[in-house]
Amino acid sequence: MRNRRVVIVGAGFGGLQAAQSLANSGADVLLIDRNNYHTFVPLLYQVATGQIEPEYIAYPIRTILRRFSFNYRRQHQKPPVQFLMTEVEQIDFSGQIVKTGSGAINYDFLVLATGSRTQFWGVTGAEEYAFSMRTLEEAVALRNHIFACFEQAIQESDDIKRQQLLTFTIVGGGATGVEMAGAVVEMVRGCLRRDYPTLDFREVRIILVQSGDRLLVELPKKLGNYTYKKLHRLGVEIYLQTRVSEVTSGFVHLENEEIIPSATVIWTAGLEANLPGISEELPVASKSKIVVHPTLQVLEHPNVYAIGDLAYVEKNGKSLSGVAPEALQQGVAVARNIQKQIQGKSPKPFSYFNKGRLAIIGCYSGVGKIGAFAFTGFLAWLMWLGVHLVYLPGYRSRLLVLLTWLHTYLFSDRHVRLILSAKSRNVQNSQADLHYLQESRRVESL
Amino acid sequence: MRNRRVVIVGAGFGGLQAAQSLANSGADVLLIDRNNYHTFVPLLYQVATGQIEPEYIAYPIRTILRRFSFNYRRQHQKPPVQFLMTEVEQIDFSGQIVKTGSGAINYDFLVLATGSRTQFWGVTGAEEYAFSMRTLEEAVALRNHIFACFEQAIQESDDIKRQQLLTFTIVGGGATGVEMAGAVVEMVRGCLRRDYPTLDFREVRIILVQSGDRLLVELPKKLGNYTYKKLHRLGVEIYLQTRVSEVTSGFVHLENEEIIPSATVIWTAGLEANLPGISEELPVASKSKIVVHPTLQVLEHPNVYAIGDLAYVEKNGKSLSGVAPEALQQGVAVARNIQKQIQGKSPKPFSYFNKGRLAIIGCYSGVGKIGAFAFTGFLAWLMWLGVHLVYLPGYRSRLLVLLTWLHTYLFSDRHVRLILSAKSRNVQNSQADLHYLQESRRVESL
Repeated sequence: MRNRRVVIVGAGFGGLQAAQSLANSGADVLLIDRNNYHTFVPLLYQVATGQIEPEYIAYPIRTILRRFSFNYRRQHQKPPVQFLMTEVEQIDFSGQIVKTGSGAINYDFLVLATGSRTQFWGVTGAEEYAFSMRTLEEAVALRNHIFACFEQAIQESDDIKRQQLLTFTIVGGGATGVEMAGAVVEMVRGCLRRDYPTLDFREVRIILVQSGDRLLVELPKKLGNYTYKKLHRLGVEIYLQTRVSEVTSGFVHLENEEIIPSATVIWTAGLEANLPGISEELPVASKSKIVVHPTLQVLEHPNVYAIGDLAYVEKNGKSLSGVAPEALQQGVAVARNIQKQIQGKSPKPFSYFNKGRLAIIGCYSGVGKIGAFAFTGFLAWLMWLGVHLVYLPGYRSRLLVLLTWLHTYLFSDRHVRLILSAKSRNVQNSQADLHYLQESRRVESL
Repeated sequence: MRNRRVVIVGAGFGGLQAAQSLANSGADVLLIDRNNYHTFVPLLYQVATGQIEPEYIAYPIRTILRRFSFNYRRQHQKPPVQFLMTEVEQIDFSGQIVKTGSGAINYDFLVLATGSRTQFWGVTGAEEYAFSMRTLEEAVALRNHIFACFEQAIQESDDIKRQQLLTFTIVGGGATGVEMAGAVVEMVRGCLRRDYPTLDFREVRIILVQSGDRLLVELPKKLGNYTYKKLHRLGVEIYLQTRVSEVTSGFVHLENEEIIPSATVIWTAGLEANLPGISEELPVASKSKIVVHPTLQVLEHPNVYAIGDLAYVEKNGKSLSGVAPEALQQGVAVARNIQKQIQGKSPKPFSYFNKGRLAIIGCYSGVGKIGAFAFTGFLAWLMWLGVHLVYLPGYRSRLLVLLTWLHTYLFSDRHVRLILSAKSRNVQNSQADLHYLQESRRVESL
């Protein structure tokens, strides 16, 4: 009997974990991603604020796959997990075919793990003028923009315009918004003050806009209150129960009619599932998430699974919150279920084991909840850094990030303050140039 | 008496050194660059081949300036060297004004240090289809392209197209061409072979095209011969006394009528001075370099200096070769001459002290010449790495590059293999968005 082919779309936490868990199952596993690297999303905000190199949190997928196949390869010729860098264009569920930019691929089992993208809730101008921070490129673009604002502010003699350049508005008071606000404070208090000795840093405004009545709504109320007080003391202006009605070039408009001149608007106010060309065929729940059975199987397609931010999964009647451990555990679960199906057994329901939640505020503060135990301050901060260090893929990245953090916190400096110029971007058309070579692509050989 | 203002255009080796040497002179020094970082050009080829992070060789200029002003600032309020990130548009020598994208700036003394750019010698298609490697963005674009070629090659079932994707042609047999050829060999032999276990690496062709009759024409003949043999043994196909007549999309055409299908053409075959909007006013020598007096003063403008790759300077009747030590020594010399002029004394002629030359081949080989002593092999390789490590700005970069090299050579792996996708580039229009804020810019406040 030929090996079954499992196609996994998306090399985020869930997809990569599923690939690893299937690596020694005997199935032919093909992992597809549009990028050749895995992005460690939780640290993107540190890239956006110039604390760490983008390369530290972007790990080449082929290197990760090598590790999976180390033991396997001694016995077999072909590596157990193959990788294809391409874009998924459409999925034909009845024909069991994934149509990609590099050709059509048949599957026996399909794991959809394409994650989420920023949701702008239809706010006018938000997609156009606000920065989001879901991909490495977006984080680098935001970094370029932030440091360019300071370079321009120091040249600006008009008080109002300078104030606008030095105003950073973060929309969304969840974990990402809070950590971003704290990181901007750290950045301003640390290196920037020394880089721009002639700039009056009292002009810098950091604004956090939250629609709910407190920060970090997914954590207990007292942690949200602690976070509010901490950020307030750090100088962040926090607007609770406030929504953004419009973003224009250089301004953020609030629903209370206030208009804040702000050259930088960072949108962290929501995510929706990132469906790979299948939106009309599958039933979706809130935030466009795919409805799945408790086994993570997609309705009516028992050989198709959806995991991570893409899937609508509940625990105790509430939707899961979209953190990495959920995707990782689901990756393990689908691998197990697919193996069961191959063996002719029934897949088992997935149950999320919540080890706890941590959120970092910055400036040596964080909040956390493990079981019924909620804690705040330095310990939570340190635990957050420690946990993220451990989960980073690759010991090299781990070492380099550790060194960078030590440096940052010992000298309150940060080194990745490059503004990569806009002009030279047309140099980078290399990939487009290659397309003439792509006419007769066939992927059947995979 | 008011302080004299020295404006330095360009923060490369020469300009930065001039700024440092003038930092404690009492003059007001303004350093202008279009980027907010200094690029350590000698290691660009390692960025292009995914060996080191781009951030390691790009150092924020304001951080470097901080170091200069450490002692100074205890006594004075204003830092001795100021920085302005802008583009120079025109220079009015009679009015002593530098016109920039951020306004007009008066100077008493001007140091032009804008370096060089790639010279394509009018070869049709070269500028459009060949990669050059003079800026950080160009090196990153080349890295993206090289790794994209491998990702596409593994998907390509057409033998001829796959061969084309796996052919890397380097034009120019000087130090940059040689080190690039060696680095591509190292890359292919190291990580790529493990990343693409199903690819037949005998299909990879690395071609080096040199117009002269040997490699490394600026070094003694025997070193060029050694380099030839070494690269030949590493599998590089070397064409001597061969010129490129045309570059088209995916092909390089040689003057001997041969047409090589090659998805990657890297142009290292020449540099010319990068004149900042002054080309018609100043007399220029070969490669558009500005003719200067032995004191490095520009003809007819005794308060204007040109240094580095921009200036035409001879030693023993031959033009200097455009390496970093020349620019560094010239930076010191102009600082001294400007101080002399401020004191009413005459500037002194510049004389280059040649400490020696080193060139790296790769795979543990290099060549070098110190005084009359020429040497080859492992010692030259190690010395090259050591010297470049010492000259890297900032101890952090030094440590990280050292760690990276140790890792690379111990495990023959390399980690920076990201292909940053072409698509997301339009995300990066942030700087353009800011221009509405720039109407009433005045720089007099500087």
